[in-house]
Amino acid sequence: MPSPKIIPLVMAGGAGTRLWPLSRDTMPKQFIPLLAGGLSTFQATLQRLADPAFDAPIVITNTDFRFIAAEQMLACGVEGEIVLEPERRDSAAAIAVGAVLASRRDPEAVGLALASDHLITDAAAFRSDCKRAARLAAAGLVMTLGIPPTHPSTAYGYLAPGAELAEPGARRLTRFVEKPKLELATQYLAEGYLWNSGNFLFAAKTMLSELARHAPEVLEAAEAAVEKARRDLDFLRLDPESFARASKISIDYAVMERTDSAGMLAASFDWSDIGAWDSIHEIKPKDGDDNVLEGPAVVIDTHRSLVRSDEMLTTVVGLDDVVVVATRDAVLVASMAASGKVKNLVEQMKASGRPEASEHLRIYRPWGWYQRIDIGTRFQVKHIHVKEAGQLSLQKHFHRAEHWVVVSGTAEVTVDDRTVFVHENESVYLPIGCTHRLKNPGKIPLELIEVQVGSYTGEDDIVRIEDIYARN
Amino acid sequence: MPSPKIIPLVMAGGAGTRLWPLSRDTMPKQFIPLLAGGLSTFQATLQRLADPAFDAPIVITNTDFRFIAAEQMLACGVEGEIVLEPERRDSAAAIAVGAVLASRRDPEAVGLALASDHLITDAAAFRSDCKRAARLAAAGLVMTLGIPPTHPSTAYGYLAPGAELAEPGARRLTRFVEKPKLELATQYLAEGYLWNSGNFLFAAKTMLSELARHAPEVLEAAEAAVEKARRDLDFLRLDPESFARASKISIDYAVMERTDSAGMLAASFDWSDIGAWDSIHEIKPKDGDDNVLEGPAVVIDTHRSLVRSDEMLTTVVGLDDVVVVATRDAVLVASMAASGKVKNLVEQMKASGRPEASEHLRIYRPWGWYQRIDIGTRFQVKHIHVKEAGQLSLQKHFHRAEHWVVVSGTAEVTVDDRTVFVHENESVYLPIGCTHRLKNPGKIPLELIEVQVGSYTGEDDIVRIEDIYARN
Repeated sequence: MPSPKIIPLVMAGGAGTRLWPLSRDTMPKQFIPLLAGGLSTFQATLQRLADPAFDAPIVITNTDFRFIAAEQMLACGVEGEIVLEPERRDSAAAIAVGAVLASRRDPEAVGLALASDHLITDAAAFRSDCKRAARLAAAGLVMTLGIPPTHPSTAYGYLAPGAELAEPGARRLTRFVEKPKLELATQYLAEGYLWNSGNFLFAAKTMLSELARHAPEVLEAAEAAVEKARRDLDFLRLDPESFARASKISIDYAVMERTDSAGMLAASFDWSDIGAWDSIHEIKPKDGDDNVLEGPAVVIDTHRSLVRSDEMLTTVVGLDDVVVVATRDAVLVASMAASGKVKNLVEQMKASGRPEASEHLRIYRPWGWYQRIDIGTRFQVKHIHVKEAGQLSLQKHFHRAEHWVVVSGTAEVTVDDRTVFVHENESVYLPIGCTHRLKNPGKIPLELIEVQVGSYTGEDDIVRIEDIYARN
Repeated sequence: MPSPKIIPLVMAGGAGTRLWPLSRDTMPKQFIPLLAGGLSTFQATLQRLADPAFDAPIVITNTDFRFIAAEQMLACGVEGEIVLEPERRDSAAAIAVGAVLASRRDPEAVGLALASDHLITDAAAFRSDCKRAARLAAAGLVMTLGIPPTHPSTAYGYLAPGAELAEPGARRLTRFVEKPKLELATQYLAEGYLWNSGNFLFAAKTMLSELARHAPEVLEAAEAAVEKARRDLDFLRLDPESFARASKISIDYAVMERTDSAGMLAASFDWSDIGAWDSIHEIKPKDGDDNVLEGPAVVIDTHRSLVRSDEMLTTVVGLDDVVVVATRDAVLVASMAASGKVKNLVEQMKASGRPEASEHLRIYRPWGWYQRIDIGTRFQVKHIHVKEAGQLSLQKHFHRAEHWVVVSGTAEVTVDDRTVFVHENESVYLPIGCTHRLKNPGKIPLELIEVQVGSYTGEDDIVRIEDIYARN
C-alpha cells in the first residue's frame, strides 16, 4: 500500500510558563529562539517536515501569536495555513479543527497532530517513523508516537502495549496511563510501556468518526467554527461563538482513552519535550565542568549548571546544579532539581500582578517590535524597530507628546495632514493630540528612539484610527 | 586628666571588590547606600562622630572619589577637610598625612584613624570607647580598638593582650598576629586576644615620632606631600611627586608591629567590617525564612539567602544559602560560603577586560550623573541628570551629533555662540563639531534623554574646553 498524503497539524497555541523568564504568555516557548542558529522549536518542527510525503502544514495557534507564527514561517521558508483559535480550548478542539480542515483538503488524508515545542534532532528517523505510522493510520488506527523510556520517569504518561501490528515496533495500544509513581514507572519499563509524546497520526475521516462517537459536541463546535470562519489577511479566524462551545478537554481524554482503534509506534528518533530548564541543560552542548553557558556569563567553582543571559554580565560563584537565566527585566535563579517549580513561581507572580510574569519587555508587532529602555515620572523612552515596509497604525494620544530620533534607516512620518521623511540623525516632534503614522519606506530596518513626555505614558493611551494589519 | 581634642582621620580611599557588582572601582563600597535610609557606611562613619569631643574630620580619599565624598558629606550635613591622594599607597602613608595635618591643626591633638567601610550601630558606645582610648593615647600610647571575638574567625588579625592599663578593658598590646588557622584562633580566644579592627587612636606627635623612628621615608614623603599640596576648589591635593615616595605599606607593618607603645582597648560596641556579601546578610533584618530581600525580589522554597535587586524582578526557586545581587548591567549569584571569592571573580573579569568588573553603569560626576540606557551600531542613548546649578564642561565631539530631549526641569544650552533655554518636552540638536555646554539654571533637577548618533560614541570623544570643576 502506498503511503497516503500526510497533512501536518501543528499545535502552536500553548503558553508554557516553566521556561520563564524566556517563555511568557506574550511570547511562549515554542516561538523562543532556543535552538542553534536562533531557531525556535516551532520552526524546527516545520523544517522537520521537508519531504514530499508531507503536505503543506496547518498551523493552529492563538490569535495573539498570529504575527509571530507568520513571521517565523516566512523566515524559515515554510508555507502553510495559519488557523486562529479565538481562545484556548486544549487539544481535542484543536485536533478536531485540524481534522475537519484536512478532510476538506483531501478526504483520504492522514493528519499528523504535532506539538510545536518538542525537540527532535534526527529528522530523517522522525519522517520515516511518521510514514510507517501513517500506513497503519490509513488503515483505520489512531496511532500514537511512543518514546522508548530511558529511565522510569514520573513526569510522563505511559502507553501500554498490546498485540503486534504489521509495522515493526508498532502495537495495539491497550491503555493510557497518567504520570505514575516511581515504583509503577519501573514496572512499566519492564513491561515494554512507552512514554506518551502527545504526537498522533490518524486518517482524517477516522478522527472525525471517533470524535462523532466519543466527543460529538467538540466535533460540532469545530465544524461550525470552520464553517463560519473568516479570512483575515493570511489567517483563518475560527468563529468565536462556535469554537467556544467546544469543551476544554485534551485529545487523550476525549478520544484516545475511549477508542477501540488506538495503536502505538515505538519512535526511533531522539526526543525531548523541553519541559523545564533542566531539559534545556540536558540537550545543550556542555563545557568541561558540565556547564551550559550562553551569552555574557562568567562562572568560577561552578558545575552542572545552566547560565543564560541576553545582555547583562551574569556570574556564578561556587554553586553546582543551578539554573540562572537573565533577561533585561527579570532574573531567575533556581536549583536544577526545582526547575519544574518555576511554573508555581510564575503563578504566584501573576496573582500579585507582576507584569514581568506574563509580558516580555520587547513587544512584537506585525510591523516589528518596541522595547522600553527607560521610564520615570512623566516620561518613557522606547527603542522602536520597524521592518522594511512595516507601518504602525494611524493613531493619536491624549496624554503624551512624542519626540522621535531616527538612529538608522529612514522614516516616513505623517503628522496630521503633512508627510515628511526623517533620516538618520534627524528628529521629529509629535505634539499631544496630533494624528500620526510611522512607516518604513526603505530597504533596511528603521531604528528610532522615541521619547514620550506627558502625564500618562501607558500603552492603552492609543486611539487607532486605521491599521493595515486589521488590529482593533 | 581631661579628654584631649580628637581629630578623626577618615580613610576613604579603598576600592573593595568583594561586594561586586554593587561595589566597583568607580564607586567602592564605602560610598554605596548599603544602610537603612540610603546611607553609605562613609556617611554613617561621619555621623557617628557627632559629639563635641570630636573635631571636624579630615577625610583622606582618592582623587577619583572627591566629588562623591564631598556630595555625601554635604548630604549628611558634615563639614570637614577632604585630602586627595594622587594614587593608592596603603594605610601608613594615609595615616602619616593625617598625623601631619592633625598636628598642624593642634600639636596636642589625638588622631583617630577610622575605616569608612565598617558598620557600628551603637554610636554612643563607640564614642565613649574612643574618649577612653584617647586619654591613653594622649599619654603616649598608640591605641588599637580591639573587638572581643564572637567565634574563632580565621578572617581577622588578632591582638595579644599584655599588662592592664589605667582604663577598664585596656591593656598593653604585646603582639599583632596575622589571620591564623582555626586551631590557633581557638587558642587565641581562650587567651583573651582581640580582633584587630584596624581603627587606631594616637597623639599626633606620638605617631610622628613613631613614624620618624620606624618608617622615616613614609613620614618624609607625607610631610613633603602636605607641604607642597595644592588647594583645588574645596579639596587639598597632595603633591603627587612627594606622595609617590611613600612605600606601599600598612600602618600595622610600618608602626604597630614595631612600636614599644602599643595598647589595645576592648570595644564595647558591635562591629562588622562588611567584608563580603555574607556579612551583609548577617547584619540585615531577615524574614521568617531567614532571607534578606531588597528591591523587587520573589522567592519560593528558599532560605538563609540574600536577594538584592536595583530594578529587575529577581527570583529564586528552591535554593538555600545563596547570594543574588542584580544591578542593571550585571548579576552575581554565589553560594553564601563562597561569597569571599567574589574578589577572585572580579580579578578574573578585569583580566579579561570586562568593563562591568570596575565601572558602574551610572557614572557620577560633580554636576550629577549619566547612565547608558541603550546602545547599538552608530548610536547610544543616555539618561542625564544635572543637579541644581550643575553644569557640564564646555565641550565638543569629533564623531557624533547629539539630540537632547528635556523630560523634566529646564536646560540652559550653549551651542557655539548662542544660548537657549530648553524646557520640559522640548528638544535641541547639537551637530557634530559644535562647541556646547549644558547647565541646569533651575530649582529642580534637570533630566534629559541624550540620543547620540555617529560613527563613534565612546566616552573619550570629548574635547573639554572649559570646566567649572577643574577637570582635565
